[in-house]
Amino acid sequence: MTTGQDTERAENGGRTVISVDAMGGDRGPAAVVAGLMICAERLPDAQFLLHGNESELKRLLARQPTLAGRVELRHADRVVTMHDKPSQIMRSGNGTSMWSTIDSVKNGEAGAAVSCGNTGALMAVSMLRLRKLPGVNRPAIACYWPSRNPSGFNVMLDVGADIKAEAADLLQYAAMGASYAKNGMQTARPRVGLLNVGTEEHKGRAELHEAHHLLGAAAEVSGYDFVGFVEGGDIPSDRVDVIVTDGFTGNIALKTGEGTAKLISDFMKEAFNAGWMSRFAALIAMNSLKRLARRIDPRLANGGVFLGLNGTVVKSHGSSDATGVAAAVELAHRLAKAGFTQSLAARVASAERAGQDAPASAGEAGSEE
Amino acid sequence: MTTGQDTERAENGGRTVISVDAMGGDRGPAAVVAGLMICAERLPDAQFLLHGNESELKRLLARQPTLAGRVELRHADRVVTMHDKPSQIMRSGNGTSMWSTIDSVKNGEAGAAVSCGNTGALMAVSMLRLRKLPGVNRPAIACYWPSRNPSGFNVMLDVGADIKAEAADLLQYAAMGASYAKNGMQTARPRVGLLNVGTEEHKGRAELHEAHHLLGAAAEVSGYDFVGFVEGGDIPSDRVDVIVTDGFTGNIALKTGEGTAKLISDFMKEAFNAGWMSRFAALIAMNSLKRLARRIDPRLANGGVFLGLNGTVVKSHGSSDATGVAAAVELAHRLAKAGFTQSLAARVASAERAGQDAPASAGEAGSEE
Repeated sequence: MTTGQDTERAENGGRTVISVDAMGGDRGPAAVVAGLMICAERLPDAQFLLHGNESELKRLLARQPTLAGRVELRHADRVVTMHDKPSQIMRSGNGTSMWSTIDSVKNGEAGAAVSCGNTGALMAVSMLRLRKLPGVNRPAIACYWPSRNPSGFNVMLDVGADIKAEAADLLQYAAMGASYAKNGMQTARPRVGLLNVGTEEHKGRAELHEAHHLLGAAAEVSGYDFVGFVEGGDIPSDRVDVIVTDGFTGNIALKTGEGTAKLISDFMKEAFNAGWMSRFAALIAMNSLKRLARRIDPRLANGGVFLGLNGTVVKSHGSSDATGVAAAVELAHRLAKAGFTQSLAARVASAERAGQDAPASAGEAGSEE
Repeated sequence: MTTGQDTERAENGGRTVISVDAMGGDRGPAAVVAGLMICAERLPDAQFLLHGNESELKRLLARQPTLAGRVELRHADRVVTMHDKPSQIMRSGNGTSMWSTIDSVKNGEAGAAVSCGNTGALMAVSMLRLRKLPGVNRPAIACYWPSRNPSGFNVMLDVGADIKAEAADLLQYAAMGASYAKNGMQTARPRVGLLNVGTEEHKGRAELHEAHHLLGAAAEVSGYDFVGFVEGGDIPSDRVDVIVTDGFTGNIALKTGEGTAKLISDFMKEAFNAGWMSRFAALIAMNSLKRLARRIDPRLANGGVFLGLNGTVVKSHGSSDATGVAAAVELAHRLAKAGFTQSLAARVASAERAGQDAPASAGEAGSEE
């Protein structure tokens, strides 16, 4: 099942096609085009479908000869703004660059989509056009989190697709998150943890106790190790690869982590800017500070992936600059090349089957990745 | 109502008495005694009741002549460990140092209590012995959070007293948190925000929409400004002084923030330790790095305060060293001196009254702090 019809079409002639929304980000299409410049050099097999205002995009592309022959423009009259409500866009979003970006994945022209636009609207359009995978109740958004693991990152989900999750949803998040860690970070056997306010089994809400039981029972068939409950402090740790939680808690944890990192980084700048001696010290320490910045640069962890749909969609941060856009497009490219949508579908289906005829069929799954 | 009988007794002869649990912390009574050494110098009017194993404490105190006459020992045979269940301690905790530490506040000998022990057990014993303030449904734990505000800190609650909170509980947290910010940080008119996954009014769970309405309506009578919904990234910001959330979300946000700060600090040490050039840079940058460390030192923000009880209890971090213990004891001392329990009780009572006869009595409150 690793190569479906769509993937073959999207990889026409050994090329991997990525559908990119040029509009809707805070920095406008210039940042997106600059991001594609970086990707064009790093990913020789990548081809881009770029959706947005044609005349504006033509002008931007005219200045970048290295993108000649790599980008195909798709004109869209309208743009989804950060203030548009998802329900509104679901009714009348046809004709926006976001809608057309997703449709290129739906009709098999592209292997994955990337947008910097309104998260709620992007999820709504993606669900409407791509539909949920059979067996998935709530899709989730997964993100990378800087960590002490050798890969430098952990995976956390859901970070904001839905504000609630039942125990059965958390079980699907575990299977999908493990599959994502395998495809996105090449983690052979991901360790999955369930986020809670303590590691003892009696801690936390009732649905978490139920989920603890379900995740433990499904570990073998879904190809992960279950480490039990983890706490907020464990999110960046090396005792876990995938952190499972509901979208409310996950979104607040993600933004709290980002906010804390930003606070420390600003305090650090102020500390190294207080008087000439500090500025001299900063100059000497430049290399160390740069090395540090690379490890916690939020732009390099950019890209929330929508899991549970018939197609791969990467949400880039609204304020992404060229470096951030490039990271999101590279992630989409890596997932498209790995046939991620297909292996995720197989993983969800086999977990579903195992749930139905357990425990007899427990040996069936685990071969598709 | 600012000076009750209890406060007068606890301040016998112009002295402020703090009840301190010497046992139950990860570093044992030595760290607690070392913390009291720091406090004894900084707080000339402070007197300490120290609860724990008498012979062990006598030995530790014998080495510290500066504590002579400042510490009164109270022997307790037993210690609450980190593994004890709160329900167990409620049944059979009499005779532990934790129980006796709280009882000194209950019987009016001390103006506030401090313990580094098991959080769940400490909350259980505090609720059992001190009882909830009239009108309070769920007590909360409030913590300081390093921020961009001039005071250097924001207040967040609940960070783990209870795993859930209804809209009415969140309303009480707002009133209690505002009162705490006034007494603990001298913020004249605190700005209160409600933690959510977005700032737009339609975002988040149903109980948050209800709470948004309640907190807005009660702002005037409870003496705070309501800034509406805030996100995880706003917790350390200067657009808010008090962040209100349920204990599940608050606990995960707190530990996520601590974990992120620890990760960055460890990465920073590694960056400044990679080769002789980096180590030389660290030497030059020492002052800047120290200045930074002081602003984000979690030990200085140590001390979760239990709000909503007939008495002030400060929970010091389990792993607190002397600096951390000293910060928690100083906080307890500041609150005891300010008559915090009494002004909190008055605040909760007037909010309660205002809720009953609103809007006629809206002008009554706001004078006791």
